[in-house]
Amino acid sequence: MRATARAHTNIALIKYWGKRDESLFLPMNSSLSITLDKFFTTTTVEFCSCLTEDVFVLNNQLASEQELTKITRFLDRVREISGKGYRAIVNSTNNVPTAAGFASSASGFAALTAAATKALGLNLDGTTLSKIARQGSGSACRSIHGGFVEWRKGEKIDGSDSFAKPVMSDKSWNISILSVLLTSKPKGISSREGMKRTVETSPFYSGWLASVEQDFLSAKEAIRARDFEKLGTIMEANAMKMHATTLGANPPFSYWNSGTFDVMQEVHNLRTLGIQSYFTIDAGPNVKILCHPKEEQIVQEALLKIPTVKAIHICHPGPGIKYLSDSDRLKKY
Amino acid sequence: MRATARAHTNIALIKYWGKRDESLFLPMNSSLSITLDKFFTTTTVEFCSCLTEDVFVLNNQLASEQELTKITRFLDRVREISGKGYRAIVNSTNNVPTAAGFASSASGFAALTAAATKALGLNLDGTTLSKIARQGSGSACRSIHGGFVEWRKGEKIDGSDSFAKPVMSDKSWNISILSVLLTSKPKGISSREGMKRTVETSPFYSGWLASVEQDFLSAKEAIRARDFEKLGTIMEANAMKMHATTLGANPPFSYWNSGTFDVMQEVHNLRTLGIQSYFTIDAGPNVKILCHPKEEQIVQEALLKIPTVKAIHICHPGPGIKYLSDSDRLKKY
Repeated sequence: MRATARAHTNIALIKYWGKRDESLFLPMNSSLSITLDKFFTTTTVEFCSCLTEDVFVLNNQLASEQELTKITRFLDRVREISGKGYRAIVNSTNNVPTAAGFASSASGFAALTAAATKALGLNLDGTTLSKIARQGSGSACRSIHGGFVEWRKGEKIDGSDSFAKPVMSDKSWNISILSVLLTSKPKGISSREGMKRTVETSPFYSGWLASVEQDFLSAKEAIRARDFEKLGTIMEANAMKMHATTLGANPPFSYWNSGTFDVMQEVHNLRTLGIQSYFTIDAGPNVKILCHPKEEQIVQEALLKIPTVKAIHICHPGPGIKYLSDSDRLKKY
Repeated sequence: MRATARAHTNIALIKYWGKRDESLFLPMNSSLSITLDKFFTTTTVEFCSCLTEDVFVLNNQLASEQELTKITRFLDRVREISGKGYRAIVNSTNNVPTAAGFASSASGFAALTAAATKALGLNLDGTTLSKIARQGSGSACRSIHGGFVEWRKGEKIDGSDSFAKPVMSDKSWNISILSVLLTSKPKGISSREGMKRTVETSPFYSGWLASVEQDFLSAKEAIRARDFEKLGTIMEANAMKMHATTLGANPPFSYWNSGTFDVMQEVHNLRTLGIQSYFTIDAGPNVKILCHPKEEQIVQEALLKIPTVKAIHICHPGPGIKYLSDSDRLKKY
């Protein structure tokens, strides 16, 4: 009744932006990501017949009521699938540098899915794990797998065809992903709220939907062909479009700040110098940059010269979920 | 055969963004502006039977071949209307602080229209002048009039119903327009090019068109009701939408820089402090801010604290075109 699993964060190259079903976390569009080696969540779940309610320990601290509610709601779904009603102790540790600008919800719900289902004796494949993880946080379904991952939106009302899978069986394409942390306050609008407001009020949302499936297909082609320039170009344009939709919302909003712009301009500048680098931005001001591993130092040095850049973490494609023994839990890798 | 006229720049509250006819300068959407008191162009045109080609002196310097070509093409249109084929000397002076972030094409073509038609003995009303000015630069049609000005897009192929007129006969609503100049390089993409690329490639352009006519009508209502908050809110949202369309173009582009963001955030901040201020942005990084005259100093001081802000000019609603005598030409007012 006890299991430990680890899952890594992922960064979307083609963005998940908008839900067609709020409770099942079904997306309006397909998305595509890279799972990252550096940032991950390790979660141990133990189900006990004697517990009267779930307990959630996050980074060695008892989590807030609000956080616990989300976990309990998600575990209820796992309990329903397994047919077992026990309450659980969830002990979760995020190996993400403080405020690295990564949502830990993707790695968090992926690790929780793997650990909780295993603890209940279920032996599920990646597809099934992905569908369950999706119901905790949409992007978590992609963190089940390693390397380049696609999440097809699916068509069915029950979400049974909406899950993630690896783009390539061969994961040998090594690229660098620089996570650029800017001086920033907590974001004003969560991605959940931001998506909702955009879907409901932005006159640009239909334009987003009309172009994102083509971006998704083109990005997959680029990955299969190992065409870095094509992948970077599509990724960057796709991020710009996602952020454009928020400017049309009512009231309008933006996740960017002035540092975001400094970084975008430096990336453009590096390209004019012949260094292939491309940016993407999630629902916050921080920027992630794709470049060739041989040029990651040059790109890092150029970006660290920008006053608003606080830190840069260099990542590479990382693995999918992994089950750990109790003794392995304490080891970082 | 000689006349002098002055016209003032204008700032669009509801943006003109996209042409339905490139040669007649017919817009895809209606727009709305304020003509400004501070920045203007004074132009003297003299037609002479002895000249073999047009001469264009801009700010006391002989203009480039490229600039001359635009002027000649425009004068050809005026010559066609008047039935008189003489060449002209055009002497034009822009009273716009260097790099104030204002396009001088609006005031320039408005002044040229008034001076050239008068020099040829035509005595035209504002509507007719506006239609002619439009064919030099779209936004020039609005600079024929003073105060709040609307430019209805019109429906006809020949453009005969596409001209500007004052929103109110009573121009007594005094508001302040702060022109915020940022440290900036020349813009990479002209508004003409930017519009074209957006109309042709952005999946958001249809969303722009679907919402801008309502913005136009609501802004007019707000002006008539002297509802500052409503006008500011619509203006700001309209600018955000215009700029969002460029992020979806192929290739994507943006007129903003990091300073633009600093200013937008400070404007939001001022509102949380109870100071009504709203921004708008044209095809460049500089920002214009609407506020109440009694608070213009507070807003100016707050913005001057931003390191990327280079200068601020405070404007108010200004007059429409004016004909000047030769002796008046040298006077600023």
